[in-house]
Amino acid sequence: MFQIDLNCDLGESFGAYTIGLDQDILEYVTSANIACGFHAGDPGVMRKTVALAAEKGVKIGAHPGLPDLLGFGRRNMAISPEEAYDLVVYQIGALSGFLKAEGLHMQHVKPHGALYNMAAVDQKLSDAIAKAVYKVDPGLILFGLAESELVKAGERIGLQTANEVFADRTYQADGTLTPRSQPDALIESDDAAVTQVIKMVKEGAVKSQQGHDVSLKADTVCIHGDGAHALTFAQKIRKELKAAGIEVTAISAQKST
Amino acid sequence: MFQIDLNCDLGESFGAYTIGLDQDILEYVTSANIACGFHAGDPGVMRKTVALAAEKGVKIGAHPGLPDLLGFGRRNMAISPEEAYDLVVYQIGALSGFLKAEGLHMQHVKPHGALYNMAAVDQKLSDAIAKAVYKVDPGLILFGLAESELVKAGERIGLQTANEVFADRTYQADGTLTPRSQPDALIESDDAAVTQVIKMVKEGAVKSQQGHDVSLKADTVCIHGDGAHALTFAQKIRKELKAAGIEVTAISAQKST
Amino acid sequence: MFQIDLNCDLGESFGAYTIGLDQDILEYVTSANIACGFHAGDPGVMRKTVALAAEKGVKIGAHPGLPDLLGFGRRNMAISPEEAYDLVVYQIGALSGFLKAEGLHMQHVKPHGALYNMAAVDQKLSDAIAKAVYKVDPGLILFGLAESELVKAGERIGLQTANEVFADRTYQADGTLTPRSQPDALIESDDAAVTQVIKMVKEGAVKSQQGHDVSLKADTVCIHGDGAHALTFAQKIRKELKAAGIEVTAISAQKST
Amino acid sequence: MFQIDLNCDLGESFGAYTIGLDQDILEYVTSANIACGFHAGDPGVMRKTVALAAEKGVKIGAHPGLPDLLGFGRRNMAISPEEAYDLVVYQIGALSGFLKAEGLHMQHVKPHGALYNMAAVDQKLSDAIAKAVYKVDPGLILFGLAESELVKAGERIGLQTANEVFADRTYQADGTLTPRSQPDALIESDDAAVTQVIKMVKEGAVKSQQGHDVSLKADTVCIHGDGAHALTFAQKIRKELKAAGIEVTAISAQKST
Repeated sequence: MFQIDLNCDLGESFGAYTIGLDQDILEYVTSANIACGFHAGDPGVMRKTVALAAEKGVKIGAHPGLPDLLGFGRRNMAISPEEAYDLVVYQIGALSGFLKAEGLHMQHVKPHGALYNMAAVDQKLSDAIAKAVYKVDPGLILFGLAESELVKAGERIGLQTANEVFADRTYQADGTLTPRSQPDALIESDDAAVTQVIKMVKEGAVKSQQGHDVSLKADTVCIHGDGAHALTFAQKIRKELKAAGIEVTAISAQKST
Repeated sequence: MFQIDLNCDLGESFGAYTIGLDQDILEYVTSANIACGFHAGDPGVMRKTVALAAEKGVKIGAHPGLPDLLGFGRRNMAISPEEAYDLVVYQIGALSGFLKAEGLHMQHVKPHGALYNMAAVDQKLSDAIAKAVYKVDPGLILFGLAESELVKAGERIGLQTANEVFADRTYQADGTLTPRSQPDALIESDDAAVTQVIKMVKEGAVKSQQGHDVSLKADTVCIHGDGAHALTFAQKIRKELKAAGIEVTAISAQKST
Repeated sequence: MFQIDLNCDLGESFGAYTIGLDQDILEYVTSANIACGFHAGDPGVMRKTVALAAEKGVKIGAHPGLPDLLGFGRRNMAISPEEAYDLVVYQIGALSGFLKAEGLHMQHVKPHGALYNMAAVDQKLSDAIAKAVYKVDPGLILFGLAESELVKAGERIGLQTANEVFADRTYQADGTLTPRSQPDALIESDDAAVTQVIKMVKEGAVKSQQGHDVSLKADTVCIHGDGAHALTFAQKIRKELKAAGIEVTAISAQKST
Repeated sequence: MFQIDLNCDLGESFGAYTIGLDQDILEYVTSANIACGFHAGDPGVMRKTVALAAEKGVKIGAHPGLPDLLGFGRRNMAISPEEAYDLVVYQIGALSGFLKAEGLHMQHVKPHGALYNMAAVDQKLSDAIAKAVYKVDPGLILFGLAESELVKAGERIGLQTANEVFADRTYQADGTLTPRSQPDALIESDDAAVTQVIKMVKEGAVKSQQGHDVSLKADTVCIHGDGAHALTFAQKIRKELKAAGIEVTAISAQKST
């Protein structure tokens, strides 16, 4: 039986500023990555987003980012592995406060933005992040770019990991994402995006930009939560995955096969 | 048998900035209030301070403050009870991340600076703070100004509380602290300060500026951690309390009488 | 000849977060209060907003706020007059960097949110703010709540001042705004709001909630810049002021009568 | 006649946190680089530091840094040239507010820490910084690492520039600083450090770690302002430069030769 998790970044509003269609997108995803106040989110937004996700039965994860609210955590910063460890422990802890207050459990941790991208290719940074997650709670699942250094670091330390794939991004012959700087980085057609995900789940492979199939493990798909199109696409992929015989279910609820 | 807890604010350094003689003062106190990154402290400082306190066998508490690093959390801010709840949950959670990572338990929560002072006289704010502490972990001990609204709010919700007293501050006939704006607010003599604490512990009373004894419960004494005099005084009070037959021990290790 | 200035808060976006219909509202106002990075705004937003306002021929002012991005500068903070002086000098300076870079001149300064409200009733705070404005540039015009302490402080130090009135707020017999906590604080009808402004400009008076005319000087009207209704109202008031024979023109371009 | 400017980073305290021996070091330097609130400094510290420098007759410059207080502006961040432009304009402006309030003029701009280092080797970043300085005030002098991209960018746009050299750092055969990661990066002996500076000023050259003289223009020497040794060294270099017939004078007061 085929299974896949759909995850989405949530709780990215801050004070008077609102971003994201959190309430709506929660109807379609199974795992919510909640911002923890460094790149986005604030204590009040975290409390409300935890409550919303719990109400919809969506599993909750921490989405720690770089301390760069102005850059939304998307600008690389030369932090040391030790600094990465510290900021991940801090942010997981902060979100877990709101979960404990409601008697809820955290499912996973997915680094955000530049932290996620830097970790994907940096073993020392990834080891520090994986260690932070493991030491706070070895039962947490670490989300990382499929087959990246972050996923490997999680496996090394003994964490359950989830290989994340993207519906709307193209892949290279070596299994990496086509850089956004290239014209063919994005898949514009919703149909093509859904088809790519179904192939990933069923065949464990993706057709690269070079035209050949590349093997790629897909445990969870990143769904966007901002803009009207995001909702339409979330609805569509959910429906078509079901039609293709793929069960959409949170990573922690999947039966091992 | 007489017992008292000595607590100190710790982990108030930030990035390249250092405040406090943390390593030294930990020799003399039994409870450490660790800043959580809002008014002071940062993730790296929190990790190191937790390790230092654990190494010295000092019990650890969260010291949540207002989001005002520039003002060191000492400027009153008109936050709502809900905002107070959120920032206390967040900060307890953040510190608990570092405790969980080391297999340690949190003993207490003591609000910092303006949050502590506002809560002392504001029932709604105090109820929100007490609720935050209780919901995250009902086993936590809430530190507040002796016989203040904060202590009452903690008792109302079912938390163990600790009445905090000050060695170097004078008291009024109604048991409140003499405001710092008044010339006789501070006790300059170390001997007089120690004598005041011994009287508080043994007699449950303090001599007010008006000359009469006022009953006052003393569970924990606030010890300063900054400046050379702080160390001298900490050493002195510890020695003289022992000489007076008072056991200095963390609040959670005290035997109920 | 009757004249009035229409001002609006602008440049309140921050990083990835967008607030306000800046481009649209600039069609209707004559003075723009640009956020300076403390309560809202960031360096990039400031640069773009300055350019937009200049392009539309709208006069530019600094809109300094409290250092509270999370609270959008709307929460009172117990800052000292000296701290108020410092943060106003800093923020006027920061905005003036972008003006100098484009060869533009600053017209005015209007404190934001809680800083504006606290200054309206606090003489020491107002004197500090007025001094900050005067010392940076005595040619700046200080905007404050009509007939408030802030306007008086500006006059005392020798600044040109602008009495700000509100179209959609009701007034009390003593000329103060009806507090928002009261049910009749807001004027819901656009027609009534416009009528109130026309009366203010032509008669120098407002009908209080107690039913009598109160004299009130009106130099500039605060126009909101957020939400679809804001645009409709801005368009309407502009049109009806003209129909009433009142010239809408920036405060610095008005002819003294 | 030989002349040299001695500059020092100042005003790096923040709120309750103190760094640097500002008052003392101002006795020995001729140009002060004042932090502007992003990597260090706050509005109150800026006001006080401007007053101190003016009192001592030391020329004042802006010391803009990355928006990273936690990292003291020392961690590289992947900011765009446009973001660099914006944050330099903002910070020069902010400091100029305090200068205008006291009727003082700004002499120079020296980027701080990681911004300085990144600009030294990145032409686009340097052009953006130089443009920011030039557009705010073409009379400002741009300080940069001797013969770096930053100095070249300043010259290209038409700014006066100052080549900064280091007394306590060794140089490579190509005129660049020996990276701090190498064991011979620092000059430990004060005598050797002074000798290096005298040679730079008189001969326009430095002896590289490879043993040969490399030509290097020296307009200003960076003096540290933190720690007891800093003061001793500042006093020593000032005295020995004088003994060697070199006049220590602010860059803007030097006679062109």
